[in-house]
Amino acid sequence: MSELDKMFCPKSVAVIGASKNPKKIGYELVSNILAGGYEGGLYPVNPEGADVMGLRSYTSVRLIPGEVDLAVIAVPAVYVPDVVEECGQKGVRSLIVISSGFKEVGNTDLEDRVLSAARKYGMRMLGPNVFGLYYAPSRMNATFGLSRVFPGSIAFVTQSGALGVAMMGWTNLYHIGVSAVVSMGNKADIEEADMLDYFEDDDRTKAVLMYIEGAKDGRRLIDSLKRITIKKPVVVLKSGRTEKGASAAASHTGSLAGSDQIYEAAFKQSGALRAFDFVQAFDWAKLMTMQPPPSNENCLIITNGGGVGVMTTDACEESGITIWPLPDDLQAGFKNFMPVFGNSRNPVDLTGQAYEDSYFGSVGLAMKDQRIGSIIVLYCQTAITDPVAIAKSIADVCESQPCDKTVVTSFVGGPQCEEAMRKLDERSVPTYPIPERAVSALAAYYRWQRYKQRVDKI
Amino acid sequence: MSELDKMFCPKSVAVIGASKNPKKIGYELVSNILAGGYEGGLYPVNPEGADVMGLRSYTSVRLIPGEVDLAVIAVPAVYVPDVVEECGQKGVRSLIVISSGFKEVGNTDLEDRVLSAARKYGMRMLGPNVFGLYYAPSRMNATFGLSRVFPGSIAFVTQSGALGVAMMGWTNLYHIGVSAVVSMGNKADIEEADMLDYFEDDDRTKAVLMYIEGAKDGRRLIDSLKRITIKKPVVVLKSGRTEKGASAAASHTGSLAGSDQIYEAAFKQSGALRAFDFVQAFDWAKLMTMQPPPSNENCLIITNGGGVGVMTTDACEESGITIWPLPDDLQAGFKNFMPVFGNSRNPVDLTGQAYEDSYFGSVGLAMKDQRIGSIIVLYCQTAITDPVAIAKSIADVCESQPCDKTVVTSFVGGPQCEEAMRKLDERSVPTYPIPERAVSALAAYYRWQRYKQRVDKI
Repeated sequence: MSELDKMFCPKSVAVIGASKNPKKIGYELVSNILAGGYEGGLYPVNPEGADVMGLRSYTSVRLIPGEVDLAVIAVPAVYVPDVVEECGQKGVRSLIVISSGFKEVGNTDLEDRVLSAARKYGMRMLGPNVFGLYYAPSRMNATFGLSRVFPGSIAFVTQSGALGVAMMGWTNLYHIGVSAVVSMGNKADIEEADMLDYFEDDDRTKAVLMYIEGAKDGRRLIDSLKRITIKKPVVVLKSGRTEKGASAAASHTGSLAGSDQIYEAAFKQSGALRAFDFVQAFDWAKLMTMQPPPSNENCLIITNGGGVGVMTTDACEESGITIWPLPDDLQAGFKNFMPVFGNSRNPVDLTGQAYEDSYFGSVGLAMKDQRIGSIIVLYCQTAITDPVAIAKSIADVCESQPCDKTVVTSFVGGPQCEEAMRKLDERSVPTYPIPERAVSALAAYYRWQRYKQRVDKI
Repeated sequence: MSELDKMFCPKSVAVIGASKNPKKIGYELVSNILAGGYEGGLYPVNPEGADVMGLRSYTSVRLIPGEVDLAVIAVPAVYVPDVVEECGQKGVRSLIVISSGFKEVGNTDLEDRVLSAARKYGMRMLGPNVFGLYYAPSRMNATFGLSRVFPGSIAFVTQSGALGVAMMGWTNLYHIGVSAVVSMGNKADIEEADMLDYFEDDDRTKAVLMYIEGAKDGRRLIDSLKRITIKKPVVVLKSGRTEKGASAAASHTGSLAGSDQIYEAAFKQSGALRAFDFVQAFDWAKLMTMQPPPSNENCLIITNGGGVGVMTTDACEESGITIWPLPDDLQAGFKNFMPVFGNSRNPVDLTGQAYEDSYFGSVGLAMKDQRIGSIIVLYCQTAITDPVAIAKSIADVCESQPCDKTVVTSFVGGPQCEEAMRKLDERSVPTYPIPERAVSALAAYYRWQRYKQRVDKI
């Protein structure tokens, strides 16, 4: 058991600074914890002891009956050291300090006092200056971010609060499932390495996505990355790549971004996958939580449109994915699922006349073949075929047999394609509105797989 | 007047091979022309003379009373030469040959016969092997693609049929307005250069987006590109960038893709903007049809989230956009629209407490300043601010004054952000679900602007 379990899966939570005023963060916190369906004890604390959202409140954390595993603190910065001291006296096990006004605005001494108080009582602390913590398994949305989160198995760790909150909305909009959202803030105590260590052993997390502007302890970060990446993929977004970006980061979180090349090398060396932007990062993580890694280097493209086949071939070649030249036996097999003017070479072109049976047959054939390590299935909307039916046939054939290879899809077209893609995602066949995004995700999975294989050999 | 006007804006259209059978292309064509709202004469032609969708039909194009500006031909390939001959005798002015089964399957002689017949009567011909032509100003959807198209001012020219049809759906889904969709097919007569020449003088087209696998006449293509790009931007998607991609293209459209470096150089030299994928291509074209080009190199970022500010700064620097170091007077001005812990340097961080008035004030200030050439406005969803209200305030301030600079926006968050973005797009303030896409579009606009300025000097 990790000492952070009390923070991620607390049996009881005190919200210190809980408020009846819907414009206050202390209201939002209680409201989100309730809305998320958290089933442990919930104790609002505020100076008046006024009830909050029908919950009995307390004027001090020390007056709460029973144990408090986690205190979420949202009081003005100057009061935080005393509140933390009280938490220690009460025997609180862990802290999330939402309050801002510390190191990020130069109040280093105040932050040090808070940390000392926490350490004195052996409490682990997230923050200060965070928007909170969401953890799907405990249904705890202890954030002042958005109330609706789509549960899943990506843990999202962010040094940017605004980005984190926005991402909660964005992942919900696109039905990308997250196991955790963690706001890192000033990292007085808990830093990214702690989170990686926690998620390394968290069965509910299959991939970690981390936005970072600068590391507190680079050596520790690399060590933690090296440990976790042999078990599960970590996708990193590190901004401050350019001089001006680094300077903007410095004035944002006070991060000394350091030379970007050093980070780049550190990520490579430790098996972390660096993404360019957050859509790409979530694209990658989505695939990695839905599908097994590719079983070998041979990739097959199945399409109903020659043009997207060509574009996808380009994208594969440019990102280190091998378009496998199909042997005659397989070409002959694919010919059964296409008209005479189809193309049985890779990319396999079923033509615009491909209905659901063509997809079912050809994807099924590919899935059975051990020589193929990954499959990219493409569909361009036509006037005569039904994207939703085709999506169903692809998901059906994927579910019809145990599969050791990676399947990604892309459906290009209008609203019906959007519906088709939602159904594929729901059935864990990851799909993307453009082939290049599918390729980018698959390429990242290959890079991780190759890294692991290299490390395994050492 | 262009000789192609009879094709784009015909007063009357004959559909030869029109069918009552909803599974036939000849049905789809009539159905789409009617659904699109075309108001000219429409004459189905088929051997039985059977009425199609309530329209009187004819057994031959020669029997149609009155003039026929355009004949759309969808009969089996072997009959096409005779049909074209008949069209010539009737005095038809232009042809779209939908039928396939020509050069793309090796029937070069048959295609030559069709072309000869067309030339004999001075008819211009699109195709064969195309899905048709859509032109918004004449409300003519003479395609067997999708029936719903979102009208606007991007002309989309595609050598891939499947991609073109899918794109009709995709642009409709994302409300990206197109003035024309042209399927190039085998290019027996009309090739990309003809289309560029046509759109050069077409007031309803503000930008051209072209998917090409290989040029028929490279020299002519470059000349046409050079002429049009000094008037309006052309975004090019050229696949077959890699060896395997080029080989897939060869088996798709029979294009000899040629060395990709030659194309790359040709596009650069002629001011065409080469995009990596079609989302990027439409992102760029969307901006270019909605906003004036940047008036100078100084770019300003306004954000409510430090993290996205940093990411956007990185993306700008990497794509050649100058993040302008703000002079003191402007910094003082921006301070009026943010709390004390805001950041008045570029990227200007209004903080997560920025409501619609902060955006209205700061964007308004930036728009008035002649030293600024482009503005990137970013919003990260928060629990306390309303994305739709903020979008409205940005659109209001953009409309409140004539503006000579480029404004792009990105709203990151959940369903409310999606609604906010739709409203921005509707009011011609282009918006993107991720800052990097906004930056990519702005960078492309800068490249085009710089190209024009270089050419103007020569």
